[in-house]
Amino acid sequence: MIQDVIQNIKPVDENWYAKAQRRLDSLTKPVGSLGRLEEFARGLVAITESDSPVLDKKVIFIFAGDHGVAEEGVSAYPKEVTRQMVLNFIRGGAGINVLARHAGAEVIVIDIGVDYDFSGLERLVSMKVVRGTKNFTRGPAMTRDDAISCISVGIGLAERYAKEGYKIFGTGDMGIGNTTPSSAIASVLTGRPVREVTGKGTGISEDSFERKVKVIEEGIRINNPSPDDAIDVLSKVGGAEMGGIAGLILGAAANRIPVVIDGFISTAGAMIAYSIEPKVRDYMFAAHNSVEIGHKAMLDRIGLKPILDLNLRLGEGTGAALAMLLITAGLKIYKEMATFAEAGVSDEIQNQL
Amino acid sequence: MIQDVIQNIKPVDENWYAKAQRRLDSLTKPVGSLGRLEEFARGLVAITESDSPVLDKKVIFIFAGDHGVAEEGVSAYPKEVTRQMVLNFIRGGAGINVLARHAGAEVIVIDIGVDYDFSGLERLVSMKVVRGTKNFTRGPAMTRDDAISCISVGIGLAERYAKEGYKIFGTGDMGIGNTTPSSAIASVLTGRPVREVTGKGTGISEDSFERKVKVIEEGIRINNPSPDDAIDVLSKVGGAEMGGIAGLILGAAANRIPVVIDGFISTAGAMIAYSIEPKVRDYMFAAHNSVEIGHKAMLDRIGLKPILDLNLRLGEGTGAALAMLLITAGLKIYKEMATFAEAGVSDEIQNQL
Repeated sequence: MIQDVIQNIKPVDENWYAKAQRRLDSLTKPVGSLGRLEEFARGLVAITESDSPVLDKKVIFIFAGDHGVAEEGVSAYPKEVTRQMVLNFIRGGAGINVLARHAGAEVIVIDIGVDYDFSGLERLVSMKVVRGTKNFTRGPAMTRDDAISCISVGIGLAERYAKEGYKIFGTGDMGIGNTTPSSAIASVLTGRPVREVTGKGTGISEDSFERKVKVIEEGIRINNPSPDDAIDVLSKVGGAEMGGIAGLILGAAANRIPVVIDGFISTAGAMIAYSIEPKVRDYMFAAHNSVEIGHKAMLDRIGLKPILDLNLRLGEGTGAALAMLLITAGLKIYKEMATFAEAGVSDEIQNQL
Repeated sequence: MIQDVIQNIKPVDENWYAKAQRRLDSLTKPVGSLGRLEEFARGLVAITESDSPVLDKKVIFIFAGDHGVAEEGVSAYPKEVTRQMVLNFIRGGAGINVLARHAGAEVIVIDIGVDYDFSGLERLVSMKVVRGTKNFTRGPAMTRDDAISCISVGIGLAERYAKEGYKIFGTGDMGIGNTTPSSAIASVLTGRPVREVTGKGTGISEDSFERKVKVIEEGIRINNPSPDDAIDVLSKVGGAEMGGIAGLILGAAANRIPVVIDGFISTAGAMIAYSIEPKVRDYMFAAHNSVEIGHKAMLDRIGLKPILDLNLRLGEGTGAALAMLLITAGLKIYKEMATFAEAGVSDEIQNQL
C-alpha cells in the first residue's frame, strides 16, 4: 500500500507557481506586497493544478495514541489523560474543537493507539493498531508491521476524505508522553544530538528534563534505528500518532491535497513522510513554530517555514486550524481582489509592474 | 477635544488580567499552552472590564491622504494612485476589502487629506482636513491647527463607532508617499537616525532610497520638530492619515475599545498617540511585523509585540484584518473551551495546575 501511494506522488509543476504569480501581479497592490499570503495562493494553485482552487471542505485529523515510555516519568501528566482528552474532543470542548469551528474545519478523532477500549463510542474513528506502544528503553516501541499499519491508517483516511471532496487537511495529535518519541525521531532523522531536539513538553521540571534526555538516548542506543529507514525509526522509537500522520501526508500528496502540519509531534510525522518520499514537501504547509526546540530542526531539514509564531505548545492540531485561516486568506486574495484593469488604475502604474 | 479624551483614558486594571488567566488555567489544556492566544484573551477582558467580552461588530478604518513630499520622487507610484485606490476600496476590490470580509469586519474609508475632490461619492466618509500635505522639505507639512483637526477626526470616529456598538477597531492607511513621513515620525520620536528607520516602501530602487533618506533628513533639519511634542512632529513632518489614526487610538482607549494597529504607517500614528498619552498602549494590539525596517523601532519603543510576520508591506489595514482573526481565536478559546471540571478530567491533573 505504501509503495502504491508513493508511486502516485508527483513533483509539483513549477509552471503553476509562475502562472499563479502572474495573476497575483495583476491585482491592485504592489508586486509581492502581500508576502506569504501570495506564497500560500501559489502553493494551492500548484498543488491542485487549478486556476481557481476551492477550500470549501476542511478537516483536521487528530491521531491519538499512548506511549509505553510515559512510565519513565517523561510527562507532567498521567497516561489516562489521553483517554480523557479523546472524550473531550468527541464532546467538542477542547481547544482544537473551538479553533477548528473558527476555521470552518471538521474534526475527526482517530484512535490509532490509545491504551483504552472505547468500543461503542460513536464519532470516534476506531483504527487501533496498538494498545499503546511499548517502552522503547527496553526494546522497540512497536513491530515493523505495526508501524506500517499505522502509516496505512493515515493513507486510508487521506484516500477516503479526498474521495469525499475534502479540499485541505490538517494534522493533529493527542498522546501523553508523545514529545519523547518525537524528539527521538527528530534526533535520528536530523542527526542532531538528543539534547538539542528535546524540550520540556507540556511542562516538566529541570530534573524531569534531564531524565527525558537520558531516556531518549537510551532508547536510541538500545534499538539502534537506521536513519536511512524511516519505518525502522518509527517502529523502534516512534509512536502510533506519528505513523498515522506520516501516512495522512503521503496520502494527501498522492491525491494533490494540501496538508497543514501542526506542531512538534505532527512535524515528527512529517519527518517520517519526508524521509520516505521527499516530494511530499511541496504539499505541506508548516502551521507554526512550536515552543519545542526540536521543531525547528525538523522544519529546517524538510525545508518548511512556519506560518505562525504564537508560543503554542498544545498540539491537537490547534496551530493547523489557525494556519488554515491564513492560507484561506491567501486564496481569497488570489480569487477576490480586483485587477488593475478592473479597477481602472492608471496604465502608468501597470507598466511599472 | 484632545485634552478631554486624554482625561478619559484610564490605565488597564491588572486585576482583570489575573482574573482572565484564572479562567484560562481552568480550561482543558496545560497552563499557558495556548501562548499568545491567552494573552489576547487577557487583553480583551482587561480592556473591556468584562468577564465575557464580545467581538460581534468589527470595523477597520482606512484613512487616506496625499503627501506633498511625494513630488521628491520618494515613491514608486504617482500621487493619483491614492485617489484610484480610494475608489477601489469603495468598490470592494482591494486587498483590505477581501481580508476584512474574511475577518468579518466592515471597512470605513475616510478622506482626511486626499488631493482630489470626491464630492458626491457615497460610502466615502468625507473629513478632509487638507488637500494633501505640503512638501516638508520646504516647510511644515501642515499647520498645527490642521494636525489637531486630523487627530480630532480620528477621535470623532472612535466616539461615533463606540456609540454604535462596535467592539473592536482596526487601523488602515492609504497615501502614496506615506512611508516617508512615517519614517520621519519614527526617527524623531524614537531618536534613531533616519537611515535606520527608512525602508524601500512599496518598492523603490537603491538610488531612490538614498534620495528618500536625504529628503527625510532635510525635512527634519528644516522644520526641527520637537520630540517632546507629538503634535509638532505630526504637523511638521507627518501626514493627515497618521493624525487620524492617532486620534482613533486615543478615542478607542477612552472608550475602552481594543484597537488593532496595522503596519508601518499605522504604527507611526500609534507612536503619535503613545507620545501624547502612553496609557493607550494597553488598548493596542500590534497586527504584524512589517517589512519596513522602521516598524520594529517604533513597536519596541511603545512596547508592543507583533502578532504576525508574513512579509506584508501593503498597508490598508490588511495586517489588522488578519490579526483580528487571531485575536478572535483567543477570545473563542476563553469563552468556548471546556473546563477540567466540565470535561471530567482527573482531579490529579487539576491539582498539578
